[in-house]
Amino acid sequence: MPANPSFLILHPRLNLYLKPFFLSLPHFSSPSLTFNSIRRFPIPKPPFPINRRNLSSLSSAATTQSTDDNGGGRGRPGALSAPPTTDDVRRIDVNPPRGTRDFPPEEMRLRNWLFRNFREVSLLFGFEEVDFPVLESEALFIRKAGEEIRDQLYCFEDRGNRRVALRPELTPSLARLVIQKGKSLSLPLKWFAIGQCWRYERMTRGRRREHYQWNMDIIGVPDVTAEAELISSIVTFFKRIGITASDVGFKVSSRKVLQEVLRCYSIPENLFSKVCIIIDKIEKIPMDEIKKELKSAGVSEKAVEELLQVLSIKSLTKLEEILGSAGEAVADLKLLFSLAEKFGYSEWIEFDASIVRGLAYYTGIVFEGFDREGKLRAICGGGRYDQLLSTFGGDDLPACGFGFGDAVIIELLKDKGLLPEVNLEVENIVSALDVDLQGAAARVASILREKGQSVDLVLESKPLKWVFKRAARINAERLILVGSSEWQRGMVSVKILSSGEQYEVKLDELE
Amino acid sequence: MPANPSFLILHPRLNLYLKPFFLSLPHFSSPSLTFNSIRRFPIPKPPFPINRRNLSSLSSAATTQSTDDNGGGRGRPGALSAPPTTDDVRRIDVNPPRGTRDFPPEEMRLRNWLFRNFREVSLLFGFEEVDFPVLESEALFIRKAGEEIRDQLYCFEDRGNRRVALRPELTPSLARLVIQKGKSLSLPLKWFAIGQCWRYERMTRGRRREHYQWNMDIIGVPDVTAEAELISSIVTFFKRIGITASDVGFKVSSRKVLQEVLRCYSIPENLFSKVCIIIDKIEKIPMDEIKKELKSAGVSEKAVEELLQVLSIKSLTKLEEILGSAGEAVADLKLLFSLAEKFGYSEWIEFDASIVRGLAYYTGIVFEGFDREGKLRAICGGGRYDQLLSTFGGDDLPACGFGFGDAVIIELLKDKGLLPEVNLEVENIVSALDVDLQGAAARVASILREKGQSVDLVLESKPLKWVFKRAARINAERLILVGSSEWQRGMVSVKILSSGEQYEVKLDELE
Repeated sequence: MPANPSFLILHPRLNLYLKPFFLSLPHFSSPSLTFNSIRRFPIPKPPFPINRRNLSSLSSAATTQSTDDNGGGRGRPGALSAPPTTDDVRRIDVNPPRGTRDFPPEEMRLRNWLFRNFREVSLLFGFEEVDFPVLESEALFIRKAGEEIRDQLYCFEDRGNRRVALRPELTPSLARLVIQKGKSLSLPLKWFAIGQCWRYERMTRGRRREHYQWNMDIIGVPDVTAEAELISSIVTFFKRIGITASDVGFKVSSRKVLQEVLRCYSIPENLFSKVCIIIDKIEKIPMDEIKKELKSAGVSEKAVEELLQVLSIKSLTKLEEILGSAGEAVADLKLLFSLAEKFGYSEWIEFDASIVRGLAYYTGIVFEGFDREGKLRAICGGGRYDQLLSTFGGDDLPACGFGFGDAVIIELLKDKGLLPEVNLEVENIVSALDVDLQGAAARVASILREKGQSVDLVLESKPLKWVFKRAARINAERLILVGSSEWQRGMVSVKILSSGEQYEVKLDELE
Repeated sequence: MPANPSFLILHPRLNLYLKPFFLSLPHFSSPSLTFNSIRRFPIPKPPFPINRRNLSSLSSAATTQSTDDNGGGRGRPGALSAPPTTDDVRRIDVNPPRGTRDFPPEEMRLRNWLFRNFREVSLLFGFEEVDFPVLESEALFIRKAGEEIRDQLYCFEDRGNRRVALRPELTPSLARLVIQKGKSLSLPLKWFAIGQCWRYERMTRGRRREHYQWNMDIIGVPDVTAEAELISSIVTFFKRIGITASDVGFKVSSRKVLQEVLRCYSIPENLFSKVCIIIDKIEKIPMDEIKKELKSAGVSEKAVEELLQVLSIKSLTKLEEILGSAGEAVADLKLLFSLAEKFGYSEWIEFDASIVRGLAYYTGIVFEGFDREGKLRAICGGGRYDQLLSTFGGDDLPACGFGFGDAVIIELLKDKGLLPEVNLEVENIVSALDVDLQGAAARVASILREKGQSVDLVLESKPLKWVFKRAARINAERLILVGSSEWQRGMVSVKILSSGEQYEVKLDELE
């Protein structure tokens, strides 16, 4: 039904298109340091001999808990499942829930590297970090009429029968907090957040159900300088991680272009949101499909053809010829391109009338980052949303922001061979040469740590060969060995692992 | 029913006792920088005049969505609620869901400060960071027979009718990942994580439903050096943030003490877990209550009296007199105290036989951090859990770890006047003196940022008085003004805000 008169409807800024990523980095694995090697060392006996069969008497409840993947509904949603009765020791599914990720150390290092860059760029631009609950009231998201987000909302009923949802995006929470804080806030706000977002959809094509999103938002600035500043921060981020203007670009337009075009072609204003949503799919589904959808939305065949022609414009000059220079759309865009030159990122941005973003809350400039090879989905997206707060019952404030996911950028870095090597690096490894010197080694480790040196302390009595392998695995700079004769003289033996240089040093001269 | 034969049952390491914290830090608020001031600046007109009444036609669905706090169950848990039909613009609840927190900038700075200290200490000890999904299969947690954790599990049914839960603790996920990675892991693992944990309980006494927990775990080391290393890392953390041994201490015992005591008094081994759980409450509920519970668990009156006497022992020497020196309990504890001396934290730890922790997976040394004034709940807690992996169907590995929440420590820091001042600090504020110089100011900001200087760029044309107030709010070191006459000479005006010193500098000499 073409009944949606506005774009007060909220969408996530960024599609959660989530191919599996953080794929295996080079991972050093030493055969002598595996699970099995632990068997060589005594494992303390459990306080009681555990007879697993005895565990059947664990609980008097009668329900058997099933763990199969398609397990049907079991009673009230928030209610607790009954404990298992017959077999407490079951092989659990060792994988994280479908569509979610673990972050073992090598993936966590990459995530930390990415987030550190998000954070450092945000701070360089004078932004303050904020965060919100990953669980929000469903009402914060379902007031949106945008289709995909509603269908994919990861919502449920809690044990108190309240409708809640794992957030699909951060902006509604930000808007909620801005309304809550009200007049105590000093405008403009320049806020950033890095948060996990969720969606629930059938698991196809390797999409995931969660991703992390970097957001930067400016609240309280009506001028296009705000959008220009946001794009500048993303460009700064790209440059920092080795991405150039020949790798990626920004397509920029304004929702006001579409508004003026629709007026020119006498398309009823209440079709706006629906038309926006269809147009956003232009590069994702065949043109015939777009036309069919526009027609079934109520746009006449002639208007469709003419609309699509205007949307194909990639030149601001040509747009100005058609729309005239009086409207806000052309003025805003010209100002943005002029500011881009001053900020120094002209070569990164281009006008593209087809860009509207699928996110219904935008009211002005919209932009998206894309890879120039055209292999990936949008890397990031954002725009101005001056009327979001009033949809929540607050007073509107001029606002703009962007969302930048952690998935596509990693794909791109991988494609370009730009994924960084982020290795574990511990400055020192300290090992006793004798089990009686374990305490002495602990003393040495403590002295070094007090001086700010990171130390991997070997906690068991291990052969020297093992210690060297461990040292290599953690990329230690120094190996510090605590041996009996040196220790009696208050000395330890230091080996610089890069050069092989070896010397003794007094404990109190250890730095 | 006294039917629980082991402590294979899992509990969270740390009670989620969560008074409201991150209470208001000093917050600078300038009246001229509030919401209202924005009204002086033009807000772009919306593309369409929005008639809110029109929004009633938004959707053809018939159900009205209720947002009241006690709203009853609505259909299938995972199913989507119908969109609102009659009133799209409602005042939403501007507070985060009950028991959850927003992190506006001032709270986020404190959280970042705390997490940075967690992280830096972990790295100093050579630990690697990991993370797991906040949402896990419910089965990972409900196999535990521990009472509180089960009752308070934040569990629900997802849209695919799978039983899932927001994790109450991190350890089961860690165990799952260790089993999954299997032999590819190089032992020992030294892993840390900082993650949000959830529980669902009736909201009383200011408890929250989420908190963040710092975990450090050592997998693959059977020796007590591992526990000693963990306590050393917590002590290092305390020292770092200004907490001394006169503020906090660690109470240490071993589950093996209780085991040996129970054997001495011929208490059946299958009462062990139940007895552990009751004993853990010793400082939380009246002694009469403890006795009653022990009796109703099946411990004879005489045994209860004698058990409580042994549990009141605070001296390792006395414990050795009673248990003898042959058992593992005394040997482990003596080794731990000897290592504590070498690590340099003897004055921080004391033996206390009553410490068993309420967490059923511990098998050996257990410890908890407490405030010496006795005003707060445990600050952190941990111990050895050598048999966790087999409860999930994996091969056991020696393991120990601790959990350290973000709530009690902040309470303690507040009590001691040790909460740090963590202010927003942006090095430069750059402002144009003329609206036409907005682009020039952008150029200046870009130059500084390329040199690694953080810049708050004033994005609108603002009076100088406003700019100075903003500069004070963000604690800027320098104010850089872009004026017409200087700009024509390729210069900008720089003011050092601490000294008032002012000078002109060439654009390309700006550092």
